[in-house]
Amino acid sequence: MIRTIGILGGGQLGRMLTLEAKRMGFRVVTLEPLPDSPCGQVADEQIVAAYDDLRAIGELGARSDVVTYEFENIPLDSVLALEADRRIVHPGARALRITQDRILEKTFVAECGIPIAPFVAVRARDELIAAERTIGFPAVVKTTFGGYDGKGQWIVRSRDDAERAWRESKGRVLIWEALIAFDRELSIIAARSTTGQIVAFPTSENRHDHGVLETTIVPARITADVAERARRHAVAIAERLEIVGTFCVEFFQRGDELLVNEVAPRVHNSGHYSLDAMQISQYEMHVRAICDLPLVEPRQFRPAVMHNVLGAGSGDTLGGIETLLRDPDLKLHLYGKAHAALRRKMGHFTVLADSVEDALRKAERGRGVLHWIDERAAVLR
Amino acid sequence: MIRTIGILGGGQLGRMLTLEAKRMGFRVVTLEPLPDSPCGQVADEQIVAAYDDLRAIGELGARSDVVTYEFENIPLDSVLALEADRRIVHPGARALRITQDRILEKTFVAECGIPIAPFVAVRARDELIAAERTIGFPAVVKTTFGGYDGKGQWIVRSRDDAERAWRESKGRVLIWEALIAFDRELSIIAARSTTGQIVAFPTSENRHDHGVLETTIVPARITADVAERARRHAVAIAERLEIVGTFCVEFFQRGDELLVNEVAPRVHNSGHYSLDAMQISQYEMHVRAICDLPLVEPRQFRPAVMHNVLGAGSGDTLGGIETLLRDPDLKLHLYGKAHAALRRKMGHFTVLADSVEDALRKAERGRGVLHWIDERAAVLR
Repeated sequence: MIRTIGILGGGQLGRMLTLEAKRMGFRVVTLEPLPDSPCGQVADEQIVAAYDDLRAIGELGARSDVVTYEFENIPLDSVLALEADRRIVHPGARALRITQDRILEKTFVAECGIPIAPFVAVRARDELIAAERTIGFPAVVKTTFGGYDGKGQWIVRSRDDAERAWRESKGRVLIWEALIAFDRELSIIAARSTTGQIVAFPTSENRHDHGVLETTIVPARITADVAERARRHAVAIAERLEIVGTFCVEFFQRGDELLVNEVAPRVHNSGHYSLDAMQISQYEMHVRAICDLPLVEPRQFRPAVMHNVLGAGSGDTLGGIETLLRDPDLKLHLYGKAHAALRRKMGHFTVLADSVEDALRKAERGRGVLHWIDERAAVLR
Repeated sequence: MIRTIGILGGGQLGRMLTLEAKRMGFRVVTLEPLPDSPCGQVADEQIVAAYDDLRAIGELGARSDVVTYEFENIPLDSVLALEADRRIVHPGARALRITQDRILEKTFVAECGIPIAPFVAVRARDELIAAERTIGFPAVVKTTFGGYDGKGQWIVRSRDDAERAWRESKGRVLIWEALIAFDRELSIIAARSTTGQIVAFPTSENRHDHGVLETTIVPARITADVAERARRHAVAIAERLEIVGTFCVEFFQRGDELLVNEVAPRVHNSGHYSLDAMQISQYEMHVRAICDLPLVEPRQFRPAVMHNVLGAGSGDTLGGIETLLRDPDLKLHLYGKAHAALRRKMGHFTVLADSVEDALRKAERGRGVLHWIDERAAVLR
């Protein structure tokens, strides 16, 4: 019987996961180096330690009946150490190994028979020329490991761009990928249980700003055929990856074509909307999946738009909340972060409406009223 | 600007209030004598102290930007001490004083011009005879202060019953009230903001078992006229009480007649359903009301039935959850209490359906699969 869930990582995804787990009566311990983390603020306990501190990782395992993670850039060795200790970790080392290495990930997706953008690995400087010849320009060059929210990525339109990406990446292994002129970025959240049951949320449409997710629109404005194909791809990935838990598949859509961009083996920013727009959230689904509980088909109440509240680097106090909250169909989530650095994810809101167009209009209005206030500057003035 | 909410009381109402406040980015400190309380498990901090420990109360006030309470049996003096310290407390001492004293409460409701069951106060043993003459049998005799979940209440059908109630109440001031042969018990959750804005949730229908709320059905199966009257009464009470926060008015309904039973100056068990069936919960509404944020009209997604998961006194481990959670429209809430004493509120579930009749059937099925397991007995066997 699972009573305590351990979470590697203390960010907002862990926070929302914890809030849902607590609602269901579980205890939660998180491991995160920064004290008073968004997740630690709501968990029963935070172990303040680095993700590669194997003694602390062992302690997390000992205090938990099951361990999970809220982002995939944790060291694989930490998960392997837990598994060697006979701790249950979901998703396990296999899913993590594949999804945290872009080369393994893309090879895996291609082997599933799912279309992806053409790519080659660049392990040395002279392989840039080979990549230019095989894939060509424009391309997107990414580090194989790490990188998120647009970090560790370069748009490459010329040999000069390619040389700069190589220099800035400081010798890390890269992946050179054809830049897709897509119509839309889509994503789908799905989950697989310990018994192999798989469920999927509706396909959503995502808009980014400087590589950071800004807006998610659900359901995506796509044909039933494209939506069904996205669902089938997610199911195929879940089965072949043997993942246990909630995960996300991101796609590029170009006309009738659907290419997988990446797979995240965890709850995902583009699934926040599920907390307010569905009868079950991606977070509860993850708790169920990793705790041997049955999954259920998600059901959407109303069309929804999720908008990330990003830091502006110009103050840490959010103004305009009173105006924002006058919309009866808007749900506000703030993550308890003290400093609003530029484009840092500080919170989000979800708007429900009778159509995604209405929800988009309301979200745009909401975005217009929020602003950051620099309280120190106000005091100094 | 309010950043930290202080809560007097550490039970499940405080827990759900905290989960919603944390979602919105607030910090929460609770004061509660029992360590590791349901609320303390999710709050940033728990001050472990008695409700009448004025030093600890002062500390709660100092750490909070606004203080509230999750049950009305806290000492009035504690709220008065906070107010004397110039701390903001919502609802304030006036609303608490009136609602924690049944005589003041019923007098107040009658003065609002709202029907209530006939009652008299019984302050001495010889006043039993006067009460018998004025109100007669059958009656319900209650202690004026304290008492909840049917505790401190006696059904009185004869002079012998009345004498027993007097003995068992050990000299406390009593209220003798005509026992109403009602068709239904109803309640309505409403909220009033610091600016006097008032909103109300739909009227719900409640079923009790041994004085403990068991089931809430929303919307109540009553005429539009009765529902509208319940709403008007709640609005009148909010205005005259000048309450700030979420509160609950309980009614007896007999045909077209609607009598107020009691007023609770806090979030209420019969409003749990709002977490899952409405776009805004009674808890978020309370946070908004006490934090100077705008209130919005609640909107119900689907008909709902809330069922309390009560302890059976026969074990502390809940069995049947896997079966329960197969219903895609059922939301489970557990409160993190270690011991399932008889009729102790351990959790609840809410079922959504296309009609309250369907929801009732599903709730009944859910109730049937849950059971308590005595793990110690199982180990001994």
